Amino acid sequence: MAPVKVFGSARSTNVARVLVCLEEVGAEYEVVNIDFQAKEHKSPEHLARNPFGQIPAFQDGDVVLFESRAISKFILRKYKSAEADLLREGDLEEAAMVDVWTEVEAHQYNPALSPVVYECLVYPATRGVPTNQKVVDESLEKLSKVLDVYEARLSKHTYLAGDFVSFADLNHFPFTFYFMATPHALLFDSYPHVKAWWERLMARPSMKKLGASMAAAAGIKA
Amino acid sequence: MAPVKVFGSARSTNVARVLVCLEEVGAEYEVVNIDFQAKEHKSPEHLARNPFGQIPAFQDGDVVLFESRAISKFILRKYKSAEADLLREGDLEEAAMVDVWTEVEAHQYNPALSPVVYECLVYPATRGVPTNQKVVDESLEKLSKVLDVYEARLSKHTYLAGDFVSFADLNHFPFTFYFMATPHALLFDSYPHVKAWWERLMARPSMKKLGASMAAAAGIKA
Repeated sequence: MAPVKVFGSARSTNVARVLVCLEEVGAEYEVVNIDFQAKEHKSPEHLARNPFGQIPAFQDGDVVLFESRAISKFILRKYKSAEADLLREGDLEEAAMVDVWTEVEAHQYNPALSPVVYECLVYPATRGVPTNQKVVDESLEKLSKVLDVYEARLSKHTYLAGDFVSFADLNHFPFTFYFMATPHALLFDSYPHVKAWWERLMARPSMKKLGASMAAAAGIKA
Repeated sequence: MAPVKVFGSARSTNVARVLVCLEEVGAEYEVVNIDFQAKEHKSPEHLARNPFGQIPAFQDGDVVLFESRAISKFILRKYKSAEADLLREGDLEEAAMVDVWTEVEAHQYNPALSPVVYECLVYPATRGVPTNQKVVDESLEKLSKVLDVYEARLSKHTYLAGDFVSFADLNHFPFTFYFMATPHALLFDSYPHVKAWWERLMARPSMKKLGASMAAAAGIKA
């Protein structure tokens, strides 16, 4: 069987979200780079894969998909096994808790944490602009409140959706990985259960491997 | 069986997202109002349902959930039938297309359309502030580009995920309903396939019923 293709760069957080799922299920895959400087993302070939001209896009034979969370779910369903059942769709309540904490990542955690990553790492490196400290301070304040909720949740359960690792946890990988390379990583020390959860995730072979390649590509310390 | 409970107000878009799913599957439900003026959303009872103190929250016996998209999926799975299979999780490719267009609503359509609703309807009514025309203009420009993609998609398929109605379509109901009460509703006339899709959705009993109660609660013309 030909390996599935992921279009984009492994250092992109949305691409990394897909790759961590492929690594978790042990699927064979190929990353096809999309050259933004050459405007390849706006080429007819890429627009046929993703009409919004963004990354990632995904191809598995005749199936062509976009939107990283949708691609991830396709992968987790297709390669589901007794060892890797990361959506738990066979159990109504477990699936619901996976969905709840997947949405929490998208609507609470990420909007608070990602601006710190953009301001401290991305914009200085790609646009040559200094960090906007006001944005960082406001985001850290929001993030602290979100982490209060996470600390309470993770003091009762090993993982977000319950006592099993799931897509909800995996989703936190790309941005939290970069956050840990900012000067604000120490914030997590005030949340011992959150910190232990993050260390449990980072001990997984999937995240070790992708973290190493993201760090190398972004020029940060892993 | 006791009806399931939805905590929040029917005029809230995130609550309406859940209610439209309950109507579609024909489930019995009760809406329990949460009084924001009395700070009921920050009460210990409500925080036990939703630790972020937001609406909606949902209760079905011992199952307590938050995050509207997660609640909606629980409902669509639990009450799935031959007539109402709105997630299509039994078919790998169909489920993926439902997920793709559900994510497109969250990450492309809604960020472009919802600021127009806030600026033209919500802020003037709830905060007494005038519409910020710059925000409206920028949002409409973004929305036009999103609708170009929708027009192309809906010229090939009756609904977003394919030739079947799905959760991806339902998700567009709450904000689009309010958008149609702004002075910018005419924008949809330039996208005949999008307009026909919207009219097909609004002809559904679920959306007719909820639209009438949202219009009455928000004091707008249905």
